[in-house]
Amino acid sequence: MFFASDNGLGASDKVMQAILAANGGARLGYGNDDATKAVERRLADLFEREVAVFMVATGTAANGLALSTLTPPWGIVLCHDESHVIEDECCGPEFFTGGAKLVGIPGRGAKITAKALEATIAGLGRRVPHNAPIHALSITQSTELGQVYSVAEVTELAGIAKRHGLGVHMDGARFANAVAALGCTPAEITWKAGVDVLSFGTTKGGTIACEALVYFDPAKASEMVRRRMRAGHLLSKHRFLAAQMEAFLEGGHWLELARHANGAAARLAEGLAAIPGVRLPITPEANGLFPIFRQEIVDALKAEGAVFYPWSDKGLPEAERAGPGECMMRLVTSFATTGADIERFLSIAAKAARPLAAE
Amino acid sequence: MFFASDNGLGASDKVMQAILAANGGARLGYGNDDATKAVERRLADLFEREVAVFMVATGTAANGLALSTLTPPWGIVLCHDESHVIEDECCGPEFFTGGAKLVGIPGRGAKITAKALEATIAGLGRRVPHNAPIHALSITQSTELGQVYSVAEVTELAGIAKRHGLGVHMDGARFANAVAALGCTPAEITWKAGVDVLSFGTTKGGTIACEALVYFDPAKASEMVRRRMRAGHLLSKHRFLAAQMEAFLEGGHWLELARHANGAAARLAEGLAAIPGVRLPITPEANGLFPIFRQEIVDALKAEGAVFYPWSDKGLPEAERAGPGECMMRLVTSFATTGADIERFLSIAAKAARPLAAE
Amino acid sequence: MFFASDNGLGASDKVMQAILAANGGARLGYGNDDATKAVERRLADLFEREVAVFMVATGTAANGLALSTLTPPWGIVLCHDESHVIEDECCGPEFFTGGAKLVGIPGRGAKITAKALEATIAGLGRRVPHNAPIHALSITQSTELGQVYSVAEVTELAGIAKRHGLGVHMDGARFANAVAALGCTPAEITWKAGVDVLSFGTTKGGTIACEALVYFDPAKASEMVRRRMRAGHLLSKHRFLAAQMEAFLEGGHWLELARHANGAAARLAEGLAAIPGVRLPITPEANGLFPIFRQEIVDALKAEGAVFYPWSDKGLPEAERAGPGECMMRLVTSFATTGADIERFLSIAAKAARPLAAE
Amino acid sequence: MFFASDNGLGASDKVMQAILAANGGARLGYGNDDATKAVERRLADLFEREVAVFMVATGTAANGLALSTLTPPWGIVLCHDESHVIEDECCGPEFFTGGAKLVGIPGRGAKITAKALEATIAGLGRRVPHNAPIHALSITQSTELGQVYSVAEVTELAGIAKRHGLGVHMDGARFANAVAALGCTPAEITWKAGVDVLSFGTTKGGTIACEALVYFDPAKASEMVRRRMRAGHLLSKHRFLAAQMEAFLEGGHWLELARHANGAAARLAEGLAAIPGVRLPITPEANGLFPIFRQEIVDALKAEGAVFYPWSDKGLPEAERAGPGECMMRLVTSFATTGADIERFLSIAAKAARPLAAE
Repeated sequence: MFFASDNGLGASDKVMQAILAANGGARLGYGNDDATKAVERRLADLFEREVAVFMVATGTAANGLALSTLTPPWGIVLCHDESHVIEDECCGPEFFTGGAKLVGIPGRGAKITAKALEATIAGLGRRVPHNAPIHALSITQSTELGQVYSVAEVTELAGIAKRHGLGVHMDGARFANAVAALGCTPAEITWKAGVDVLSFGTTKGGTIACEALVYFDPAKASEMVRRRMRAGHLLSKHRFLAAQMEAFLEGGHWLELARHANGAAARLAEGLAAIPGVRLPITPEANGLFPIFRQEIVDALKAEGAVFYPWSDKGLPEAERAGPGECMMRLVTSFATTGADIERFLSIAAKAARPLAAE
Repeated sequence: MFFASDNGLGASDKVMQAILAANGGARLGYGNDDATKAVERRLADLFEREVAVFMVATGTAANGLALSTLTPPWGIVLCHDESHVIEDECCGPEFFTGGAKLVGIPGRGAKITAKALEATIAGLGRRVPHNAPIHALSITQSTELGQVYSVAEVTELAGIAKRHGLGVHMDGARFANAVAALGCTPAEITWKAGVDVLSFGTTKGGTIACEALVYFDPAKASEMVRRRMRAGHLLSKHRFLAAQMEAFLEGGHWLELARHANGAAARLAEGLAAIPGVRLPITPEANGLFPIFRQEIVDALKAEGAVFYPWSDKGLPEAERAGPGECMMRLVTSFATTGADIERFLSIAAKAARPLAAE
Repeated sequence: MFFASDNGLGASDKVMQAILAANGGARLGYGNDDATKAVERRLADLFEREVAVFMVATGTAANGLALSTLTPPWGIVLCHDESHVIEDECCGPEFFTGGAKLVGIPGRGAKITAKALEATIAGLGRRVPHNAPIHALSITQSTELGQVYSVAEVTELAGIAKRHGLGVHMDGARFANAVAALGCTPAEITWKAGVDVLSFGTTKGGTIACEALVYFDPAKASEMVRRRMRAGHLLSKHRFLAAQMEAFLEGGHWLELARHANGAAARLAEGLAAIPGVRLPITPEANGLFPIFRQEIVDALKAEGAVFYPWSDKGLPEAERAGPGECMMRLVTSFATTGADIERFLSIAAKAARPLAAE
Repeated sequence: MFFASDNGLGASDKVMQAILAANGGARLGYGNDDATKAVERRLADLFEREVAVFMVATGTAANGLALSTLTPPWGIVLCHDESHVIEDECCGPEFFTGGAKLVGIPGRGAKITAKALEATIAGLGRRVPHNAPIHALSITQSTELGQVYSVAEVTELAGIAKRHGLGVHMDGARFANAVAALGCTPAEITWKAGVDVLSFGTTKGGTIACEALVYFDPAKASEMVRRRMRAGHLLSKHRFLAAQMEAFLEGGHWLELARHANGAAARLAEGLAAIPGVRLPITPEANGLFPIFRQEIVDALKAEGAVFYPWSDKGLPEAERAGPGECMMRLVTSFATTGADIERFLSIAAKAARPLAAE
């Protein structure tokens, strides 16, 4: 019953086999190999246009590098105030950009609404040179709280950004889960909707460590080879990144894995909804759930070996936050989550909830 | 006949099997797993003392992170003027340190001599606050030109550094080759000789991507977890770094691999020495050779498919540099270099040299 | 009728005479002169303890340098969300700190309350190494909206900061106005209340360009000479900074100047309070007023040559903000504001208000 | 007998009167005043073309800001290895550029020769993305060792730079002394010779603190207002910078001051040349002399109150460096150096030299 994070799993079998198959023989390093070139072509096909691709080993690197090309060191990047870039990267974006400022926008489910974006932009000063200028918008798809932006929503947000001259970054650590949930094409939810650069994550989805920066306008990425190098993010045995990405994408494997994770989350949500003492203030749309449990249920689950963690409910309206004796928890499903684990989790929770129902 | 670099190969079979074995099941991410803890203990055993260990995916990251703890942003790091940190990391150390200055020291074979180190230190100004203060010395073991510092040499250099209050970093991208060549213990050539922090490379030696920062005084590494995080160098599925390192070290595998590479280099050197039209101004001591070839020999080798590259001879005294019709080349052997490839390489070279001998 | 800013004036006569008197003859540069040493002693006397003093030419420099010693590049600095450091320095603190994150705290009148500080600290994550750690608190005295922290308030805020291990910075661009308003000693409102480092501004108060970083624990400033140098903030003809500071402080001149400015603001506030169509949602306590005017009054004043600017009312509760036909303006008085200008300003406003009163 | 530095003096009387005259009355801050606009026009006239001007208080700021627009954080700036930017700014350029690398070029008198520049460019690696790319050349006019580049020399160096795509910066901390020595126009020795941006110093020449960044292509300076702001180098009471610059330039005052300083240096050199025990390996061309004295002479001069300092002779060929009992010293003359001081200095030196002549 491991629901701590989707990075707690290993790689899918297909991906692992591809890593194995990539071993043996000599290749030029640093991405000058055929497998890397093949991946670049595959991503161009997937996104239905020319792209510039830069693979790295972590999402924090992908995000930081992406943002460093969208803002000067004295610019502002708008993002959700519960987003990974502002909360979980220990000032990584500030490091990569050379000192830019992230300004958080509130919103339910770690989603930025058009209204909140407009209000934030309107509220920031314009006095030159005192106020830092706004240069970029970063949105996370699917969000840190398991929500998914629709094509219309991304289009609207990116449209606002464009009107104000901002570049648009999509943190796609769980991009696969979003695409699987939406049933749209990767192109529709990215550049066709106005996204300039995507951090296309595969690690959480089923590889060991591989994230691709995808620029939809290759001209904007002209300096990225040097940015990646000096940040120590150019892997020498680059073929192994390529092998992971190739296997992940081949034959729609990535969407299969994501659908499995999303389905597991949906089943979990369905089961939890029926249990007294569990609330789901945010309806899960991808592979993350953020239920508010009565503490007794959490205790029972932990006692039986379930691995999951508390999460901040600060993004909720005050009335919906965890009350006394309650706690918001994060549950993340993955490509490897089993039905058995889900049913066992639900059964323990239901049992622990019985005395509460009687209250 | 691949001699372009030791990062052109994949991983050793043992290492690849360990990666495979690490797959499956769930683990806590970010290094909070048992395999990572086991590696930390193993490295403590190997170095015969308590150490702080931080694994990352590239050597540039390891070096930059290491140096960032040895100098403030306004300090000077001394290094060889043909070293990887000053020449091949596209201002990586400057990025990680927040703007420190690398000052290169000349010397044959990319080796810093005690005399040159003393002279450089003496030549740098001491006016406060105008002149940047010297904070660290970085040496590469084995060097970028295939040389190995003896225990006595490291001890002397580190001793000079200590007398001037400098921290000592060892770039051990090819640490295994050096230890194999020296026949000493890892402790003897590092902390016992005065090294404060080691970039212990395994990628070139036989893994996919794994470099360990090893601090011999864990107190000096207290902030490294955050430095690594914000630089995007904390891998979430950390168990796979641990698996590589564990397999690399287990049963002396790393030294076996290095001895193979070193042996191949020695055989290559021996063979080349007998060929007219080839000079070896720098006697190889590890797994890199830098012969000066007559261009005709290079052409013949390339025509037969040998992969190797030119290298700058600027570190040689002018009289020894490549003359007209000559070119210094870099040949790097690896754990996977075969005797057949070496003999074929030598045979082609010898054949191409015959007309030259007659000149 | 110049109320645009207190930096729109020149220097007081005494200060200008001191600059003149400092000319002639040769002195060692970079602060190695007697006048600088005398200022250091004078500040030690003023603050009743040993201090380390670093003079620079701008407040943004003083703030950035101060914060750079209170946080590592990956730390969080708490400040008011309408503070100068977060809003008006174009990412200066991020530049000087090497990438730290400023987190804004809301509050009326640009003042941080103990409750808001506690709530912000409680709301920030503690997951290591993901969440950036909080390292410092910066408060502005007097605030950007003309409020003054009492000794008890600073003591309480600094106490909270200390309990969480934070360093405390006071942005004293208008420190003189605050001390004049409080009637306390400089020591009482700084180190005795828990402040670690003060940006002691004199430019707005009556000099040409001189701000002193004052460290109450000199040990914490050991690296500041180099930080200041590399940022280009060490003036070579340093005696002229010293001359300004000396004259500013001598015989309580600074407090006289500040009392004049504060008195002018009080008289202006008193006059405005009696005019219909003018609201003062924030009671001025130093030398800045932020009235909400009916636009007709602003127009009339501008037509008569008054110089003053609109200011954001976003820090007010929504109900108190400028409504339709209204605008919040900033009025800043200075050591040179004349009674005649004030009375003329009030008279124009009163006249323009008459038709409104009849509405 | 103050020869320690030209920043040991105050301002010329004319400049000081201008500062005084600028006081009184209110002006908009931050350069939005008429005096600043007038200076911009005056500099455009002086340089015979449209320019973008940014005034700051120190040369280190001007240099760092200039270089930050000529190189990305991962680029190389070529400069003389005894230049101020590489030796005396405590990693200031690295700070302002966000981590660029300065590569020093050797040469007599702190002058870069075309040959040395070509050799350095040829010697730097071109492997992408490993080797940092070269982006700029910085030359100092007049040099740190009192030499002056001719128009032909600047033209040749800038021509080489342009052929390699490099931007050209001129550190003109002593630009006035160079122009005075050359007798050319400011345009001829800057943009007409290929310089892109000039740090036009006035502080050493006769003001309190004022250096102007002058961009000959204003388009390249589009982001400078923000760079200057975030670095804390935008003075609020900007009229005082303007007043200094205006007075410095008005009626050729700057060249008069420089001619005085240069003349004093020439007289000093002439006198020293006649004294046994004094060598002048570098013929002074502006206002700095670097004689090698017998120690006895230095001692005698110091005993009589002369203020001057030792300087490194490392840039000289070994045979010309200070031998046993000798020391290279720096003597800097200024607009305020008196003939009496010079004659006294020479007389003391001559007297102390007498016993040496007899040796």
